[in-house]
Amino acid sequence: MVVVMKERVSTEQVERVIAHLVELGMDVHRSTGAARVVLGVVGSGKVDPRLIELMEGVHEVLRITEPYKLASRTFKPEDTVFQVGDVRVGGDEVIVIAGPCSAENEAQVDTTTAAVKRAGAKMLRGGAFKPRSSPYSFQGLGEEGLRLLHAAANTHDLRLVTEVMDISQIEVIDRYADVFQVGARNMQNFTLLRELGRTRKPVLLKRGISATVEEWLLSAEYVLAGGNTQVVLCERGIRTFETATRNTLDISAIPIVKQLSHLPVFVDPSHGTGRRDKVAPMARAAVAAGADGLLIEVHCDPDHAMSDGAQSLYPAQFDRLMAELRIIAPAIGRSICLEPIARRGWAR
Amino acid sequence: MVVVMKERVSTEQVERVIAHLVELGMDVHRSTGAARVVLGVVGSGKVDPRLIELMEGVHEVLRITEPYKLASRTFKPEDTVFQVGDVRVGGDEVIVIAGPCSAENEAQVDTTTAAVKRAGAKMLRGGAFKPRSSPYSFQGLGEEGLRLLHAAANTHDLRLVTEVMDISQIEVIDRYADVFQVGARNMQNFTLLRELGRTRKPVLLKRGISATVEEWLLSAEYVLAGGNTQVVLCERGIRTFETATRNTLDISAIPIVKQLSHLPVFVDPSHGTGRRDKVAPMARAAVAAGADGLLIEVHCDPDHAMSDGAQSLYPAQFDRLMAELRIIAPAIGRSICLEPIARRGWAR
Amino acid sequence: MVVVMKERVSTEQVERVIAHLVELGMDVHRSTGAARVVLGVVGSGKVDPRLIELMEGVHEVLRITEPYKLASRTFKPEDTVFQVGDVRVGGDEVIVIAGPCSAENEAQVDTTTAAVKRAGAKMLRGGAFKPRSSPYSFQGLGEEGLRLLHAAANTHDLRLVTEVMDISQIEVIDRYADVFQVGARNMQNFTLLRELGRTRKPVLLKRGISATVEEWLLSAEYVLAGGNTQVVLCERGIRTFETATRNTLDISAIPIVKQLSHLPVFVDPSHGTGRRDKVAPMARAAVAAGADGLLIEVHCDPDHAMSDGAQSLYPAQFDRLMAELRIIAPAIGRSICLEPIARRGWAR
Amino acid sequence: MVVVMKERVSTEQVERVIAHLVELGMDVHRSTGAARVVLGVVGSGKVDPRLIELMEGVHEVLRITEPYKLASRTFKPEDTVFQVGDVRVGGDEVIVIAGPCSAENEAQVDTTTAAVKRAGAKMLRGGAFKPRSSPYSFQGLGEEGLRLLHAAANTHDLRLVTEVMDISQIEVIDRYADVFQVGARNMQNFTLLRELGRTRKPVLLKRGISATVEEWLLSAEYVLAGGNTQVVLCERGIRTFETATRNTLDISAIPIVKQLSHLPVFVDPSHGTGRRDKVAPMARAAVAAGADGLLIEVHCDPDHAMSDGAQSLYPAQFDRLMAELRIIAPAIGRSICLEPIARRGWAR
Repeated sequence: MVVVMKERVSTEQVERVIAHLVELGMDVHRSTGAARVVLGVVGSGKVDPRLIELMEGVHEVLRITEPYKLASRTFKPEDTVFQVGDVRVGGDEVIVIAGPCSAENEAQVDTTTAAVKRAGAKMLRGGAFKPRSSPYSFQGLGEEGLRLLHAAANTHDLRLVTEVMDISQIEVIDRYADVFQVGARNMQNFTLLRELGRTRKPVLLKRGISATVEEWLLSAEYVLAGGNTQVVLCERGIRTFETATRNTLDISAIPIVKQLSHLPVFVDPSHGTGRRDKVAPMARAAVAAGADGLLIEVHCDPDHAMSDGAQSLYPAQFDRLMAELRIIAPAIGRSICLEPIARRGWAR
Repeated sequence: MVVVMKERVSTEQVERVIAHLVELGMDVHRSTGAARVVLGVVGSGKVDPRLIELMEGVHEVLRITEPYKLASRTFKPEDTVFQVGDVRVGGDEVIVIAGPCSAENEAQVDTTTAAVKRAGAKMLRGGAFKPRSSPYSFQGLGEEGLRLLHAAANTHDLRLVTEVMDISQIEVIDRYADVFQVGARNMQNFTLLRELGRTRKPVLLKRGISATVEEWLLSAEYVLAGGNTQVVLCERGIRTFETATRNTLDISAIPIVKQLSHLPVFVDPSHGTGRRDKVAPMARAAVAAGADGLLIEVHCDPDHAMSDGAQSLYPAQFDRLMAELRIIAPAIGRSICLEPIARRGWAR
Repeated sequence: MVVVMKERVSTEQVERVIAHLVELGMDVHRSTGAARVVLGVVGSGKVDPRLIELMEGVHEVLRITEPYKLASRTFKPEDTVFQVGDVRVGGDEVIVIAGPCSAENEAQVDTTTAAVKRAGAKMLRGGAFKPRSSPYSFQGLGEEGLRLLHAAANTHDLRLVTEVMDISQIEVIDRYADVFQVGARNMQNFTLLRELGRTRKPVLLKRGISATVEEWLLSAEYVLAGGNTQVVLCERGIRTFETATRNTLDISAIPIVKQLSHLPVFVDPSHGTGRRDKVAPMARAAVAAGADGLLIEVHCDPDHAMSDGAQSLYPAQFDRLMAELRIIAPAIGRSICLEPIARRGWAR
Repeated sequence: MVVVMKERVSTEQVERVIAHLVELGMDVHRSTGAARVVLGVVGSGKVDPRLIELMEGVHEVLRITEPYKLASRTFKPEDTVFQVGDVRVGGDEVIVIAGPCSAENEAQVDTTTAAVKRAGAKMLRGGAFKPRSSPYSFQGLGEEGLRLLHAAANTHDLRLVTEVMDISQIEVIDRYADVFQVGARNMQNFTLLRELGRTRKPVLLKRGISATVEEWLLSAEYVLAGGNTQVVLCERGIRTFETATRNTLDISAIPIVKQLSHLPVFVDPSHGTGRRDKVAPMARAAVAAGADGLLIEVHCDPDHAMSDGAQSLYPAQFDRLMAELRIIAPAIGRSICLEPIARRGWAR
């Protein structure tokens, strides 16, 4: 912590600040310049910088360490890479997770799952418990939805990612899914994060729509501090003044987070844009900017989807997007899964 | 809903949109202008406007009703007023809720409670379960904190407001407190809101730092839809580009919400500014703009508070603020509680 | 400037940074903590902190001085107070500037001016050159508008404030007006600001809708650096995610700017809200929070105004607002001009 | 325009609104639903929607046409493509404009120009008149800078883009440059835009940091309305709550603007990120999302640049970036200029 004193400060004011910091268990280095006194403050005491800032003669207090530890590159310089079954997250391959917004019925789940598998997705996404802004919207099928998703994922050999909204749902979701997804609105549901830190399954943590990168990493810290090291960060759009899109997908967060943290960074262009016709450009941009993976809503019949149909791709659009991504990924030394059918063809 | 077609649209495109809307159970009124066709769409069917917007030939879809019902003035034109014990919320008197950020120990709770009572507060605030951005910060005393707050509130004849973070805490808090507070980070914790809708105690619902007024009222709707009509809205600052304050307290939300909704609107200038020296100006502004009440952090010894000391007023600052507010309130035909000691003096 | 090195940094990296800073003419104080090396950097050299931040081994660079000088309280601790004719700006009296958005014709200007004078305004506002988002909107009467405003201001003994959009307009406006107004969209028109710094008339500088407080004070610095010390800052709403109002009037900027700067701070609740029915609550809030003055749009017939009618008060609404403000101002030790007619009445 | 009446509205209120609209020269279609009356309003009269919204009984007024005309795809469905010398803007080739932030001296300009030409840039960028937030920063070389840039562009056969800040600079810049650049801070300097509409050289119009897409297109409209059809839009980052980057580069604006308008859209990742190490990822993202061109700061010696060195690429970084872009562009059916040296090789 650095304490910058005001220009016209009395010796007593400086000494009172120093004495207070020492009392709180800190070491203070005083540096007197032509215009200002600056105090370098180190040590293991607990100090609230805002309180020091209110002391007489203090101009400003600057923090010099990030408040998160386990999530930072300072703590762990090399990239975090882990397996979800046979899928390697955080490595050279860009991992695509795709599927419907919500599980609606067996046919819808199965048809959609087959389509995303065929196009090269490595994991299935799909909601059973849905957080909806309005109490009058469809709230998901609950455990029945989990059962449908689990069956389809098994049939088509995909790993399953699904959203958990409350600690009371952890147990049942744990029985069906491979990855817990925490939605943007729950990014600071600390009770939930702490409990997920005690599980041993990966957690895909979406960024809150108004969360700074620092707050996002602090939320990851809640999971990591519980001993669960398998956290994936997922950018999904932030709220800005612009109303032409639902949210502003913050593509620049990708290189920034990868510099500050060792955790893999995914991007969800479906929620980030809210409109099907904007998903492909933003998915391409995310891969070009260095994302480790994508989370994309695909529906076998988006026009009749029970939720978020407007932002779900038709299977044919998803196919085309995957083909475009396969051209882009090598530009930054990465790959995207080849179409399994094509591969099988080649293997013969 | 109003569907605005593009300028150069074919008759088939218009008819396809109309047919689709009729299929979904809606009535459509077609209006052909010189440049554009506009469709007025009414009825009780379920239509996702974003899906219609993606149809060929459609320029834009405009919603003409608010998505919330019970929270709106359309549904209930007159102001909601209710009693919390002997305190009348939503009436002519501006209600001040004050107290420490967290309960720390018996002396701190009792001294602070006595001070805020003396100055004219009508309810005591104080946290036992604390949502903290960092897993390494003080997380509250839990039930022991509730016990301390409850005892002090009883002794000094104040109603108690405290924060609930998770449905698992509802039962224990219900035993001690008069009002459930839902924090900004939980404004869209729909599981929690739905459960609070089933209780019969008032809910003070803080606005999320990036919640629009509409989303805030939709969250209130979750509580109201459960049959609990005693909801207080509380503005506490929104996130903007400005970094000179912790948040930007949105004073203009007061007249706006009071126009759209019948629910009482309170303001929390402590979290809204994050700095003790900015609390009084913003508290005065809130009352001048028409707030029904205030939520203010006061601590008997803010310099040694375990949380949020920087934004807690000293008791003497709170006294002075209450005196200023008593001058301002009459400008808009309202009052603020006189100092009880003074009143007792007059009664004799 | 404080340079915070990364945790695992080599001695060479630290020395390279120090050598570079010394080469740029700075003095460096090195402070080695358990975890990090921190460098205190002082001196009169020119250093771009962003460049230092890109050097190897550097974690972060923190600035310890504001980039503005003449506008800061560090430079001038006491409040700036000056006269505009017989009107004292920045003193105990809250100064109200009122009038129409644009000058339209003689009758409109004169009737409106008479009304605002009667209610207690001290200066007349009115536009002759109008910055409009659309090239198809009314762009003002030009010099003819200045003539009308000047005549009305003279007749009713008010000082005149009008907007200047370009350096080519300075000369003609200087002939008619007492105060140059710089609009929000021109807050960073540095060519204009520099030129206004060479005039000797006060400049009312509106805050840009996305300007930080620091940028606003830097723009004031352009005028001050030219030798013109009569600058009034005017908050008029910032752009946020909220769409329920046109802008979010940042009331909290008032106490913040008054702490950082000695310049008077005014508030424009008309542009800040964009709706007539929200002007009075926000005007009251501004005065309660400590504003030195207000800028309010009043029109004798707002329903037929050529611009901004929706945010212009009817004269009767303005009268009522002035009466409310007279109750509020004393709460913070200030006054508002009494109705001149009333005063004249008393004098008899 | 659609006028939505309140639910409990009287017949007189509806009729008063209709009468008022008819008086203003509009045609009104009345549509009575179960809950609400909705009025469709068409015609060529001038109506301020905000004024109608304030009438009794009115719930909301919705606009159904964009306020811009010439800039819209409704007016001109096909893409705008034009030549700047031998460079085709808006066609299949992605055009890269590169060069230093400011012209500093002959050697710096010439070395940098040679480097960007070699790597495949088609136009040279460079500033002679610089808008700087602080009056104490380097303000550019003025006409001498233009002379240096012009000479280097000629020598290396590149077109020249440079910033104009004020109408007084148009004439001199016109003598040296091929494209006028309007900076973000001047996006709503309407006096300047109107004057540029009278020139016959292309205008590269940067988006203001808090401008909505609609406002940006309205500013383009000012130029187009003057008869100058050669406008290039340039996204350069918007201001959001996030402080980890200087601005948030709004990549999603690319597909949105291309849908609403026929004008070419460029992206400036240098100002958009403010840091050299974030420029390449965002440049790649922009091309992947469909940008028609890029504007990139390159400096032969960024560590000693007089402005914006931190966001300027080293020539070798720019080479590498161009190579990456050549892989990405074909994913969306576009190309990027091959290295001229390579081409010369082929020609032999």
